[in-house]
Amino acid sequence: MEFVEGVLKRDDLEISDIQAGDYEGKDVCVKGNVHVIRNMGDIAFIILRKRQGQLQCVVDKKDLSIKEIHEEACLKVEGTVSKTDKAPNGFEILTKKIEIISKPKEPMVLPVGKWKMKTSLETKMSLRPIALRNIRERSKFKIQEGILRSFRDYLYSEGFTEITTPKINAKGAEGGSNLFRLEYFNKKAVLAQSPQFYKQMMVGVYERVFETGPVFRAEKHSTKRHLNEYMGLDFEMGFIDSFEDIMNVETGFLKYMVEFLKKDYQKELNILNVELPVIDKIPQVRFDEAKKLVSEKYNRKIKNPFDLEPEEEELIGKYFKEEYGSDFVFVTHYPSKKRPFYAMDDPEDETVTLSFDLLFRGIEITTGGQRIHDYDMLMKKIEARGMTSEGMEHYLMIFKYGMPPHGGLGLGLERLTMKLLGEENVRETSMFPRDLSRLEP
Amino acid sequence: MEFVEGVLKRDDLEISDIQAGDYEGKDVCVKGNVHVIRNMGDIAFIILRKRQGQLQCVVDKKDLSIKEIHEEACLKVEGTVSKTDKAPNGFEILTKKIEIISKPKEPMVLPVGKWKMKTSLETKMSLRPIALRNIRERSKFKIQEGILRSFRDYLYSEGFTEITTPKINAKGAEGGSNLFRLEYFNKKAVLAQSPQFYKQMMVGVYERVFETGPVFRAEKHSTKRHLNEYMGLDFEMGFIDSFEDIMNVETGFLKYMVEFLKKDYQKELNILNVELPVIDKIPQVRFDEAKKLVSEKYNRKIKNPFDLEPEEEELIGKYFKEEYGSDFVFVTHYPSKKRPFYAMDDPEDETVTLSFDLLFRGIEITTGGQRIHDYDMLMKKIEARGMTSEGMEHYLMIFKYGMPPHGGLGLGLERLTMKLLGEENVRETSMFPRDLSRLEP
Repeated sequence: MEFVEGVLKRDDLEISDIQAGDYEGKDVCVKGNVHVIRNMGDIAFIILRKRQGQLQCVVDKKDLSIKEIHEEACLKVEGTVSKTDKAPNGFEILTKKIEIISKPKEPMVLPVGKWKMKTSLETKMSLRPIALRNIRERSKFKIQEGILRSFRDYLYSEGFTEITTPKINAKGAEGGSNLFRLEYFNKKAVLAQSPQFYKQMMVGVYERVFETGPVFRAEKHSTKRHLNEYMGLDFEMGFIDSFEDIMNVETGFLKYMVEFLKKDYQKELNILNVELPVIDKIPQVRFDEAKKLVSEKYNRKIKNPFDLEPEEEELIGKYFKEEYGSDFVFVTHYPSKKRPFYAMDDPEDETVTLSFDLLFRGIEITTGGQRIHDYDMLMKKIEARGMTSEGMEHYLMIFKYGMPPHGGLGLGLERLTMKLLGEENVRETSMFPRDLSRLEP
Repeated sequence: MEFVEGVLKRDDLEISDIQAGDYEGKDVCVKGNVHVIRNMGDIAFIILRKRQGQLQCVVDKKDLSIKEIHEEACLKVEGTVSKTDKAPNGFEILTKKIEIISKPKEPMVLPVGKWKMKTSLETKMSLRPIALRNIRERSKFKIQEGILRSFRDYLYSEGFTEITTPKINAKGAEGGSNLFRLEYFNKKAVLAQSPQFYKQMMVGVYERVFETGPVFRAEKHSTKRHLNEYMGLDFEMGFIDSFEDIMNVETGFLKYMVEFLKKDYQKELNILNVELPVIDKIPQVRFDEAKKLVSEKYNRKIKNPFDLEPEEEELIGKYFKEEYGSDFVFVTHYPSKKRPFYAMDDPEDETVTLSFDLLFRGIEITTGGQRIHDYDMLMKKIEARGMTSEGMEHYLMIFKYGMPPHGGLGLGLERLTMKLLGEENVRETSMFPRDLSRLEP
């Protein structure tokens, strides 16, 4: 009988293996995709793309032919390690033997080996699986991984439990027209536009919960900041004193995220020249106050008193950067009529809610707040809005059987990544974006 | 201007705070849901359910009335800490003051405060948001969290990159009839039945990738082992020498998982009396050989030579437990006709594939294997199967531009949890299961 022991045996080395060991002058074997070929007369440089970075192999063309080697071929290279400041990571391989493991069928369609591809967004999107092989492109999503990891790590450390809730739902959590609909074995179903109801249910179970998963919004507008499917980072917590508890957890996460990225993703931060925000404390301002401040400072008429226009968000961001040096600002007390039925109204002024948005460099990346936890209060609000409670029995059930004061938030991973990296279009920070016209790749 | 500093201020303590500090004889404040009330004449025990466990509060009814306190009410309790072996976690609170933060509207419908609820699966599912408040119920999903965390942790440490890929797709990865279909802005779309195509695309980018996310299968059968939406733990890796590399990574993960659960989830393992599998090395056996072995030992006719029936899987599990003491067994070289088009056939026998299933205690929890990485070979197989490559252009693109030998696997989180916990029905280990008849809660 043969057995699997759980140890991966490899005859090739990674960049970090060579950096960590005493390999100078020794023969090694490495593998990778041909990222770039630089032909220099008698000598050629073959740059392999490996998961940890680029690795330079020097080929003496008198000894070895490279005629059959093209960009994106997969190679096994044997040769001697030689230190040099001129190669990435401080060493190169003096090549003795090349084996082509896998050959591309066609010449490359995109200059993925270039530092900056200078390719249109449209082309990058159409050739997405290939375009992402570019070092700068893939670094974006490595940083996105770091954000995701730091979100989970921080919340674990704060006593949150990770939950996974269904994306095929009977009813939308926020209502409205932006629901994708499908047939579920002869029943009508929708795709989750938020895990809202489920995370509230789970507050009754674990008190503090979070989820990282896809959310779906059938919004019919095409902007630089909207995706129809995105990664939602959601948390919800019980026994809060006020919605400020939620803002404190988010601020704590953001501070942790910055330190986490500095520690484990410095390579990618350097590749993309990312300027991390300095987060000490984040200013908070009431919705109506924020409107007034930017109206006065930037001489702008308030058109819609119940919502923030994109331009207004931008100016609020600008204001708090200029006045307080902050890349972030919490805007609180949003009008009740613009918030979902489950939002807790302010007992001191029922036209506004105990809720907030977080703006980052002039764009909303989070909506959060306190929720109603009293059954009668919730039913009253549902009625006042002319809504039906039909199909919400399982959600309403939790309030019948005791719920603590609670609240939470949802954070869009792609938007946060976009603003962190200084990108202009959220499609740049979605691996495979979904928009009005884009269902592939 | 007010600022948010990122520090959560609480006036109440957690169980671990009290355990860690020097609180004996001191006054503290604690909060929680009323899990159980035990009325003993002059004295009452109110057991609070907190996220870290149960906390016993002793009330002298001569001093305090508990008439208004019902199960699942949310309380703020002030009192003196007193060590005792008779209370959970080794201490209780001698209650001085009780404040009711939130009142339930109705008496409890389920005995969630009982150790074992003895409620039918059907009732537990219908009242899921409440049923999960039971200590044993919620412990299951805490352990599930541990499995999920250990999967990610292990793969990070092995140099894998986490990816997030779209769940609304233009085409299914595995074809067949088990696709949920929806309308996507006047285009036909399906829900991802696997991240297969996307993770292969990303192998060209990061070499090693993984994803933890929902997968959707519109299978029309109702069994104890199938869900229509479940959490897929998927990974894919490049530059493999053979599909045994994949089995080694999975075995490495399973060993890590067991140690991780022992370290961080011992409390929940004890609550559920979980018997963790001992994993030293996992036997591997060829598909046809496995069939023969159980046919001989258990005197069973081989009915279908191309697939394993559930009963056969069970017997294979039994065989390897009896003969080798192993809870796991890799069954390799599945017939080509039963595997998807992208599976790599064995060059030594093209009727079988370089693939495997992992059985755990007699049930399949993983399907994996090596994939075809050569463009021409892939096109030939698509043609031989009478399939169309239409709609797969973005997938096929990666093979045109160079792909390393690679492979990967998909692991069902709920099934792994089910077998680990000794549950008989996979619905027990899905927070909110989706099946033929169940779309709610």
